[in-house]
Amino acid sequence: MAAISNKAAMSSDAVETYPEVIEKLKRLYKTRIRPVEELYSFQQFHSPLLEDADFEAAPMVMLLGQYSVGKTSFIRYMLERDFPSQRIGPEPTTDRFVAVMYGEEDRVVPGAAASIRKDKPFQGLDKFGVSFLSKFEVAECPSPILEKVTFIDTPGVLSGEKQRLGRTYDFVETCEWFAERSDLILLLFDAHKLDISDEFKRSIEALRGHDDKIRVVLNKSDMVNSQQLMRVYGALMWSLGKVFATPEVVRVYIGSFWDQPLHNSENQALFEAEEQDLMADLRYLPRNAAVRKINELVKRARLVKVHALLISHLRGEMPSMFGKGKKQKALLDGMLEVFKTVMRQHQLPPGDFPDLERFKARAAEYEFNKFPKLNMSMIESMNSVLAADIPQLLELIAPVDD
Amino acid sequence: MAAISNKAAMSSDAVETYPEVIEKLKRLYKTRIRPVEELYSFQQFHSPLLEDADFEAAPMVMLLGQYSVGKTSFIRYMLERDFPSQRIGPEPTTDRFVAVMYGEEDRVVPGAAASIRKDKPFQGLDKFGVSFLSKFEVAECPSPILEKVTFIDTPGVLSGEKQRLGRTYDFVETCEWFAERSDLILLLFDAHKLDISDEFKRSIEALRGHDDKIRVVLNKSDMVNSQQLMRVYGALMWSLGKVFATPEVVRVYIGSFWDQPLHNSENQALFEAEEQDLMADLRYLPRNAAVRKINELVKRARLVKVHALLISHLRGEMPSMFGKGKKQKALLDGMLEVFKTVMRQHQLPPGDFPDLERFKARAAEYEFNKFPKLNMSMIESMNSVLAADIPQLLELIAPVDD
Ligand SMILES: Nc1ncnc2c1ncn2[C@@H]1O[C@H](COP(=O)(O)OP(=O)(O)OP(=O)(O)O)[C@@H](O)[C@H]1O
Ligand SMILES: Nc1ncnc2c1ncn2[C@@H]1O[C@H](COP(=O)(O)OP(=O)(O)OP(=O)(O)O)[C@@H](O)[C@H]1O
Ligand SMILES: [Mg+2]
Ligand SMILES: [Mg+2]
Repeated sequence: MAAISNKAAMSSDAVETYPEVIEKLKRLYKTRIRPVEELYSFQQFHSPLLEDADFEAAPMVMLLGQYSVGKTSFIRYMLERDFPSQRIGPEPTTDRFVAVMYGEEDRVVPGAAASIRKDKPFQGLDKFGVSFLSKFEVAECPSPILEKVTFIDTPGVLSGEKQRLGRTYDFVETCEWFAERSDLILLLFDAHKLDISDEFKRSIEALRGHDDKIRVVLNKSDMVNSQQLMRVYGALMWSLGKVFATPEVVRVYIGSFWDQPLHNSENQALFEAEEQDLMADLRYLPRNAAVRKINELVKRARLVKVHALLISHLRGEMPSMFGKGKKQKALLDGMLEVFKTVMRQHQLPPGDFPDLERFKARAAEYEFNKFPKLNMSMIESMNSVLAADIPQLLELIAPVDD
Repeated sequence: MAAISNKAAMSSDAVETYPEVIEKLKRLYKTRIRPVEELYSFQQFHSPLLEDADFEAAPMVMLLGQYSVGKTSFIRYMLERDFPSQRIGPEPTTDRFVAVMYGEEDRVVPGAAASIRKDKPFQGLDKFGVSFLSKFEVAECPSPILEKVTFIDTPGVLSGEKQRLGRTYDFVETCEWFAERSDLILLLFDAHKLDISDEFKRSIEALRGHDDKIRVVLNKSDMVNSQQLMRVYGALMWSLGKVFATPEVVRVYIGSFWDQPLHNSENQALFEAEEQDLMADLRYLPRNAAVRKINELVKRARLVKVHALLISHLRGEMPSMFGKGKKQKALLDGMLEVFKTVMRQHQLPPGDFPDLERFKARAAEYEFNKFPKLNMSMIESMNSVLAADIPQLLELIAPVDD
């Protein structure tokens, strides 16, 4: 099908990307949160420092599905051109995760290189090791839509033995990593050959908690007639309703997402309306992504604050002269009491505290008397980010017009 | 929609009703099973003797659904005419169970009268008492399709308080009674106003075990456009998948089952194909009903056999002169042992035995020494019905041509 107008609209300036919101958010982080993280070694206890790319990255759309349902073709259709390293075919073809991003020229950045580049939001991926990084790459090309959205192509889910034998990394875990950072997750199915393997069910179940990001695409819907389409669609909903435990029905887009003419045009009007709705869904992505980034920064700032208070509390408990080793051991053993004291003193919600055992394990590697002291003005400044700056930022984002 | 040709085909002679199978089955029962039932008072322990009507009755199709989904209109559409007592309207209208059956003239037989007539298969209904019988009636009229099938119209399911307040009998229990005797159960939904209340879910759950008889009709599908229809249908399957615990998808017929022109004709071809499939489903009813009646008679004959062996065993244990009362008490107390002995002696499957406590309670009302003795030739004759006559009968029924 051809719906150039849709995709043109998507890549035009009509799509608000909130650059000023992102810019302010980045500055807030750099000037008022990151310094606290650095002072109290937050990255050693929690997650890497954030880089500009983590703020500036376009919203991510991940595609998941059994092999040959048309994931790569779908991306090609959105781009209106081929992208480097793209492989399309009736056999299992895509054998790695591919982040399809904007770039002035066509080029492929291998996974290991991409994961150390500060201008890409993939630094977190190195925790999956080289066996995964060799199965990941970034494909850049100058398709206009990529200025607004990054697509994550994935290898097709296979069933049973094949799945286990072929892969040297944990597929479900890596999917979870991308799911967390995605703003939309598209589950693709083939109307012509509907198949919901146990493996795929497990991948879907691993997406629990991201329900609001999930959309389903029933692809190749023109390869069957109206009555068959109803049966296939019905069977899909029947099974999905069981996999998703929620009463809310997931949105399914029915159509054929490639640039070939419809095989069976009975449902042309339906497919066109569905595609328009899907494009509208994509147009809201930058807005949703901006809100998501703000929310994530809020969550992060609260963790940082608790972390800073814990570390400086431990420092404050240390004797200035003798008995340091003994005191440090007592503090480690009584870490639960430390948590409780800090919680009470600063009236912090328990949910913002880190996992006790993990924190103890990390802390044991340090000498508490070398921890920095409490810097209350830094904490106050971070507090006012949460109390004043963030609410102002949220106001800059237009409400959804339904 | 109009599909006269379909309904004409349904009521024509092309639909095989297997009169000779039914006739033979009836004779087998009357000559070789019923005499055993009468001799050993089977009806006092189990269920009433079967009458000709129980064999000859046309296959039953029960309609269930929330109020105003178009159940009564559906029947009217199949009949191609009004039927006596029919009421159609946007408010809850049908306030009782109505068996719509063939009759030379239009007339209504009230429930109480219908339940005592030997020429109707409704004698079992009297167990629900007068409060139910006043909410049941038989509507007779000479529509040709009724020679092949009886429709059971039902009051619409209401939600919450209304449901409980309005009814003086147990709706779910009566539904179960009809479901057991039906050959097809149609669950109707309104595409224009989809609503699956908790009450309706409970009714559906009560149909467990009859899954193979259940079909769904998504009615009034022409009142919405294609995209809305997809959403409604998807939501229906999503919920039904959760209510029916089975992986097999229930068959849904999508259309508009009344004689008005389509409101929205986008899906006309689909609706017509769906209606043809539904009519084909109905054409198989007599065949399925014949098989069901045979299966039920087999089940019944096995119960009768066990019953006869138990009764005659109790008789055989009784002393001819003194100590009758004491012996009867000992037998009652040791009924489990009696069951085990009879099971062993005649190598009977435990599944054919009645509920122990219920049997004891009934038996206690009799004097065991007045029970009839074992009539082995009657039992043998019943055995050969199961071993020889029934398999022959089954061969008379053509296999389903797919
Ligand atoms: N909308 C469509 N209608 C019909 N056929 C399609 C459609 N989209 C793709 N195809 C065909 O389906 C096959 C698989 O396509 P593609 O390689 O894009 O799937 P994939 O999901 O990326 O598979 P893999 O998991 O192996 O990477 C190809 O032969 C392609 O031409
Ligand atoms: N296929 C149809 N399309 C649109 N409207 C319909 C259709 N069938 C019936 N209706 C209308 O819906 C309303 C309810 O119809 P009907 O009385 O047959 O429903 P019902 O399920 O029998 O309701 P109740 O449970 O109250 O007996 C009536 O106004 C009828 O004209
Ligand atoms: Mg692919
Ligand atoms: Mg009615």
